[in-house]
Amino acid sequence: MVSKSQIKLITSLEQKKNRTKSGLFIVEGKKGIREILNSPFELDSLFTTGENFNAPPSKTHLINEEELKKISRLKTPQSALALFEIPKENTPVIKNLIVALDGIRDPGNLGTIIRLCDWFGIETLLCSNDTVDCYNPKVVQATMGSITRVAITYVDLELILKNNIEQPVIGTFLKGENIYTTQLPKNGILILGNEANGISEEVEKTVSQKLNIPRFGKSQSTESLNVATATAILLSEFRRQANY
Amino acid sequence: MVSKSQIKLITSLEQKKNRTKSGLFIVEGKKGIREILNSPFELDSLFTTGENFNAPPSKTHLINEEELKKISRLKTPQSALALFEIPKENTPVIKNLIVALDGIRDPGNLGTIIRLCDWFGIETLLCSNDTVDCYNPKVVQATMGSITRVAITYVDLELILKNNIEQPVIGTFLKGENIYTTQLPKNGILILGNEANGISEEVEKTVSQKLNIPRFGKSQSTESLNVATATAILLSEFRRQANY
Repeated sequence: MVSKSQIKLITSLEQKKNRTKSGLFIVEGKKGIREILNSPFELDSLFTTGENFNAPPSKTHLINEEELKKISRLKTPQSALALFEIPKENTPVIKNLIVALDGIRDPGNLGTIIRLCDWFGIETLLCSNDTVDCYNPKVVQATMGSITRVAITYVDLELILKNNIEQPVIGTFLKGENIYTTQLPKNGILILGNEANGISEEVEKTVSQKLNIPRFGKSQSTESLNVATATAILLSEFRRQANY
Repeated sequence: MVSKSQIKLITSLEQKKNRTKSGLFIVEGKKGIREILNSPFELDSLFTTGENFNAPPSKTHLINEEELKKISRLKTPQSALALFEIPKENTPVIKNLIVALDGIRDPGNLGTIIRLCDWFGIETLLCSNDTVDCYNPKVVQATMGSITRVAITYVDLELILKNNIEQPVIGTFLKGENIYTTQLPKNGILILGNEANGISEEVEKTVSQKLNIPRFGKSQSTESLNVATATAILLSEFRRQANY
């Protein structure tokens, strides 16, 4: 059973300010909940229509379909919803290859990029303060559990990059070196820019290596790659060069 | 001005059966409309709140914001909506490297894959009959105009693959050769499978080369890559090997 105050809390967590205030975020669906239960993240409470997650009974609330509908943001609620505690951000570890996002706005793109970081073994993801919140339910949904395996920190990206003297700072630009023929560094900070405007001018000033992903189609259309697919291509090529 | 029958027609085009019946599909937003106007696709009618597209006056309807709201499927309608004719499908040309989709269901994934085909110069895209319709408004939106530059054909994929004797048929599997260290063919049919179930058993039987995209993260989680990001990684590696 779910109380009125719980419904109020859960629906309020769509908004970032309420997630920050309560320190909680929502996960929906069996698969996602199981992935996060099997991680160091702390469960706050679990609402299930019957499915057993082996969660502590004191935190488990058996609810019916109608109650689930009241708390779910999905058109087709998926048998369970859980609240987890937002982990404390640690000081980011800037070593090896890391990814930094400069103003990513689309939750689906951020979720896909987190999943790619997990796949390619990127342990640290820096997000500029104007990047969409990674505990936004749409982001959490898109990460498929990998949000627990990548250390994500929101930072004043310009400041961090200006103070960085050790690591190469890498970004993609129309005029840059061909990623397939340039020797890519093994370590560094790979910047991905905003969906509409790319990398901001201030951040561009800190870039030490400009790369370009060549287009193979004949079309002269100026349309660029989506930022998440560009991330996939870049991380694949960085790892290939470093490992094979 | 937009008539009642036009509103009825336009809103009906959300559904595939009505697109098939009328032979029309919807494009929303200035950028998308301009891209498609500059292609061989035929304009049926254009509804604009003022923006000038240099379209034939006989096909242009000046409408107000309120009328646009009635015909738009977007939360924030984008100043114009156009109907274009669905082009006739030609017999697919199976040469060079082509992509074949085996039951892709998510419109965003199909749109991203079409955009990737355009970027990487893939001229032919085969879709199994159970793949989402490429004239679905969400797909069209996600392709950003590249739908006009890739020849997309819906086919009995199993039948085509069974009858194919010339081209290598390539798919990704858990047990496959590492894409970075295997010599990839220059020509062939690259199969991407359904989001939940991967490549179907019947199609798998026709595969002549099984590939694997290696994971670099330490996690033993079984979560796979999203099909659109897998497509990005594969096409990037095929083109790199063939060109550099």
